[in-house]
Amino acid sequence: MNKQELFEQIMHKKSFLCVGLDTDIHKIPAHLMGAEDPIFAFNKAIIDATADYCVAYKPNMAFYECLGVKGWTALEKTVRYIRETYPEQFIISDAKRGDIGNTSEMYASSFFEDLPFDAVTVAPYMGEDSVKPFLTYPNKWVILLALTSNKGSRDFQLIADTQGERLFEKVLKKSSEWATDEQMMYVVGATQGSMFEDIRKIAPNHFLLVPGVGAQGGSLAEVVKYGMNKQCGLLVNSSRQILYASNGNDFASCAQTEAIKVQEEMAEYLIQLQ
Amino acid sequence: MNKQELFEQIMHKKSFLCVGLDTDIHKIPAHLMGAEDPIFAFNKAIIDATADYCVAYKPNMAFYECLGVKGWTALEKTVRYIRETYPEQFIISDAKRGDIGNTSEMYASSFFEDLPFDAVTVAPYMGEDSVKPFLTYPNKWVILLALTSNKGSRDFQLIADTQGERLFEKVLKKSSEWATDEQMMYVVGATQGSMFEDIRKIAPNHFLLVPGVGAQGGSLAEVVKYGMNKQCGLLVNSSRQILYASNGNDFASCAQTEAIKVQEEMAEYLIQLQ
Repeated sequence: MNKQELFEQIMHKKSFLCVGLDTDIHKIPAHLMGAEDPIFAFNKAIIDATADYCVAYKPNMAFYECLGVKGWTALEKTVRYIRETYPEQFIISDAKRGDIGNTSEMYASSFFEDLPFDAVTVAPYMGEDSVKPFLTYPNKWVILLALTSNKGSRDFQLIADTQGERLFEKVLKKSSEWATDEQMMYVVGATQGSMFEDIRKIAPNHFLLVPGVGAQGGSLAEVVKYGMNKQCGLLVNSSRQILYASNGNDFASCAQTEAIKVQEEMAEYLIQLQ
Repeated sequence: MNKQELFEQIMHKKSFLCVGLDTDIHKIPAHLMGAEDPIFAFNKAIIDATADYCVAYKPNMAFYECLGVKGWTALEKTVRYIRETYPEQFIISDAKRGDIGNTSEMYASSFFEDLPFDAVTVAPYMGEDSVKPFLTYPNKWVILLALTSNKGSRDFQLIADTQGERLFEKVLKKSSEWATDEQMMYVVGATQGSMFEDIRKIAPNHFLLVPGVGAQGGSLAEVVKYGMNKQCGLLVNSSRQILYASNGNDFASCAQTEAIKVQEEMAEYLIQLQ
């Protein structure tokens, strides 16, 4: 999917919501545990209930890997289900990979050839040749970690060099030499809303994936105020708040209610772009 | 496995070789392709041929993930085979993970509970709370990326702050507050041998995992000269040079020959520690 198509989806759905599929086997409603593949059964119900109100899904690899072969099977089924049933959805592998060239090539082939992901999150620490293999696929995206929403983001991301430029700003600048805003997005944590202004100075046109709204504590209004650009430029993720809105038989309809709540707020913000 | 036990293994085997199981389905000898699980058949033969000459194995997750469920199955079989057949081996998951706390917890449980790994490589970009969940398992290790061997390592790892301290030095110092040298090691690229001295000033007692000897171009003599400490303090990895020493029926015995060659050189260097 290219940038224009993503923007059109956002305007069509009046939503820039990304639903994070951080599906935890210990939090799935009890009645699903008898299903042949409880993780997939849960995901399918969540996806069917929310697809009209979001533009992206983001399975978090850790939650599938920790179940070994069963988890990997559920992941494959989930991603293929989204691609076939809702081809307009943007699918992100939240993997935070990044390794030397030949290894990054393998990861890229996993996510972009074997599985039909549109994007993968990548960690910048190892630099250009660890990121570039993900950029060789047309209409596929790298979402590079810039400023994350966790407390530990302060340990290294905010360190300034001799010119006062912080590491996350270095990452934004340097990586813009590797790809344009047609293939690169950035992870920017919503709990640090005031920094969106600094980020937009360096990356005015890029899409930003914002993971920290909801359980991680960010404010959607603030993200929009400082982060929205004329092509929206935001994908705002919500995981737990939607996935675990209820742990009863009504989990899917409760998830839908939560998704609608976010989507309606987003629709208000998108009016300015019409 | 604790640090003293690892050191004893090194002195017993007269080796600090780690064999990297970067097993590529496209490079496996043709006669194995008829096996029920070619990747596992290959790994098992390599492990049986090299176990006497190395102290560690390091499967590279990317090479298994890219095969989906089949790859994950081969990985599980490989790791369990090493643990059961050669319990003295130190097994490293080369995963370069690192995510917010609850996600890192999931990764830690995959590698340390579901699978019997001794250590996992972790990327430092997201800071303390992304690393700590891996440190809650007794006798399990984090191997943190410090200075990697690839060209892109210069993009961010060598950036100096206002005091002239480079990012990889920050990572060494900061992370030493999170764990001692009994639970933390560092990835240090061998192509930058002269920097071992700087690293040893900050981390004199830590084990260093050195990935860049062999195909990646580092010199073992230089690594030893600047990096070895009184408990050896080095695990030097070789992958392609051993795995793909031959692609014929003799692949395992050729791998053994390569492993012996490295081990014999290492034995010479270890004499000074006796």
